[in-house]
Amino acid sequence: MLEDHVRTGAYRDAIEGNRAAFEGKVVLDVGAGSGILAIFAARAGAAKVYAVEATPMAALARKLVEANGLSDTIEVIQGTIETVALPEKVDIIVSEWMGYLLLRESMLDSVLVARDKFLKPGGALYPSHARLLLAPARSALGASRSAEFQASMQGWARFAGEAASLYNVDVTALSEAYRAEQRLYFMQTAAWADVHPDDMLGAAVAVKEYDLLTLTSEELAAPLNASMRLPLAADGPVDAVVGFFDVEFNGSPENPAPAPVVLSTAPDAAGATHWGQQVFPLVPPVRAAAGDSLVGSIALRRRADNHRMMEVELKTGVDGPSPHAAAGGMGRGWTRSRWSDAGKATSGGAGGGVQHGVAS
Amino acid sequence: MLEDHVRTGAYRDAIEGNRAAFEGKVVLDVGAGSGILAIFAARAGAAKVYAVEATPMAALARKLVEANGLSDTIEVIQGTIETVALPEKVDIIVSEWMGYLLLRESMLDSVLVARDKFLKPGGALYPSHARLLLAPARSALGASRSAEFQASMQGWARFAGEAASLYNVDVTALSEAYRAEQRLYFMQTAAWADVHPDDMLGAAVAVKEYDLLTLTSEELAAPLNASMRLPLAADGPVDAVVGFFDVEFNGSPENPAPAPVVLSTAPDAAGATHWGQQVFPLVPPVRAAAGDSLVGSIALRRRADNHRMMEVELKTGVDGPSPHAAAGGMGRGWTRSRWSDAGKATSGGAGGGVQHGVAS
Repeated sequence: MLEDHVRTGAYRDAIEGNRAAFEGKVVLDVGAGSGILAIFAARAGAAKVYAVEATPMAALARKLVEANGLSDTIEVIQGTIETVALPEKVDIIVSEWMGYLLLRESMLDSVLVARDKFLKPGGALYPSHARLLLAPARSALGASRSAEFQASMQGWARFAGEAASLYNVDVTALSEAYRAEQRLYFMQTAAWADVHPDDMLGAAVAVKEYDLLTLTSEELAAPLNASMRLPLAADGPVDAVVGFFDVEFNGSPENPAPAPVVLSTAPDAAGATHWGQQVFPLVPPVRAAAGDSLVGSIALRRRADNHRMMEVELKTGVDGPSPHAAAGGMGRGWTRSRWSDAGKATSGGAGGGVQHGVAS
Repeated sequence: MLEDHVRTGAYRDAIEGNRAAFEGKVVLDVGAGSGILAIFAARAGAAKVYAVEATPMAALARKLVEANGLSDTIEVIQGTIETVALPEKVDIIVSEWMGYLLLRESMLDSVLVARDKFLKPGGALYPSHARLLLAPARSALGASRSAEFQASMQGWARFAGEAASLYNVDVTALSEAYRAEQRLYFMQTAAWADVHPDDMLGAAVAVKEYDLLTLTSEELAAPLNASMRLPLAADGPVDAVVGFFDVEFNGSPENPAPAPVVLSTAPDAAGATHWGQQVFPLVPPVRAAAGDSLVGSIALRRRADNHRMMEVELKTGVDGPSPHAAAGGMGRGWTRSRWSDAGKATSGGAGGGVQHGVAS
């Protein structure tokens, strides 16, 4: 995280800028990595900081803590938060747990476990709140992915011809499976992007808000289903829905942060954080005009085969004064789009489904 | 495998071109994938073919077999070769098990298990033999990797300055760990390449030969240690050692292939197979002249943390009439170079070691 100054700077401000909240407190850093948050907490006046890191990076964190003269305050512990023991309860938990689109590959589960195991009543989480946001956008992604998909299917047709002529093997029985796989790979995979604010067609809207102090592991594990209404400030077509998040560092009601901080990963002309934004191409694009709203719902669930990966489904329609809305109307003309955000990890692109032999 | 015509063509020739060896025989295809080898075997006159495939691709193989009218001969079985049961022993085992550099991520283990479980005495393996080959080469890889490594270390120095100025954190305690990680990533990772024959500085030499009929799982699991003598047909410097393999389809002594086939993955002006070649950069390059030999040894072992990955260590020196050999001499001036061929999978490149928080 050290090289992403928006991110590191927000944590530094949230911790070192709220000395009154940290002074004399016991702090736990969950997934400490290099230990930088623990260092901020110690500098903010914490009496004791436990930095828990599961990987061998714990050894580097210990080195960094020593080199910065904070070994008396910070204790680096290698272990998972689920199994580790601490000699005392803590006043504050700091953690940088956020994944792409907030929850993809995120460590929020572990933070909730840490909260339930170690946080004193009235204690605070840094960050304390999180929001998942969506916005309508212009994007060339859908068009380029469509072109790649078509090229891939043309490649398949050529290959099928070769298989027949060179090997006398009819592979057309696999065409449907190949098409489905390529569709998943090219058309149903969200993409990391550094979206420029000029490509936004309307303001971002929060579709889900989390209060981390009260969120339960069960709520987190359950599929997210939310309605969506994204007002358009500019004419469409709407090529994509862009997803991102922000987190707030407010402290807790009993120990509020005097100077709350927001870490936003919204499109920014100065460039994205390492999280970027997630772009969900709408194919075909949705026709709509300024004043209309892209309406519908979002469903977001963990994949059964890998709970750190997610599947996202959008139901989109247009509501508003323009003829585009009248053409479909509310409740009619719905389009369902679905993405598996890990298509790249499980599919091999061109030829993937008919490769033979050595598994990769 | 279907799209690599050198590969698929060699198997087709080895099987359909040796009808006398396959006529009326019972055949097992290990790791059948799409089932193409099973189809070749059935076309070559096999009485029965068992196509064993562990993944859900078995369903596609079954479809392909049906579409090609071979369901009476070919039985597709989804399962691992280690656990599957067959109703009879087999005369021939066909398999496309080879990985990069022959053994990386290879399925040879499973083929040996299949042989010991299912092959009749006197039965044949297709392929029957394999060789690991090395050749001296010209390559820009070492120089470009060195430049990337230097750039990465400059990036670290800049970052360390920022960490001090922006966050008042001294990260120089991690410099050594960062350097080691970047060295592993940039300098000690072999690369897939499509080497042009013009860049070869001498003929390839086999450093290991396997007779698959007699090779034991224990021999396969043991580290490979072999001496190396690569005569130079052109002047150095030698920038790299290139590794690749070939396999032979000779049948068995009791059931020889009338028309033996060799599948080579050597550098080819027409372009590489999907296996390409593996390039091991020598940094600094070895000075030598035509008539000298690059001598030494190669050690190749499976990684303890992932037995499908490998570590390769070369000990290199120069022997011959040129002053370069005299400068070092045999037994003096040895250079040890070591590569972990999966550095990319475990290291994150620039910044990898000091990233914080969310594990990827």
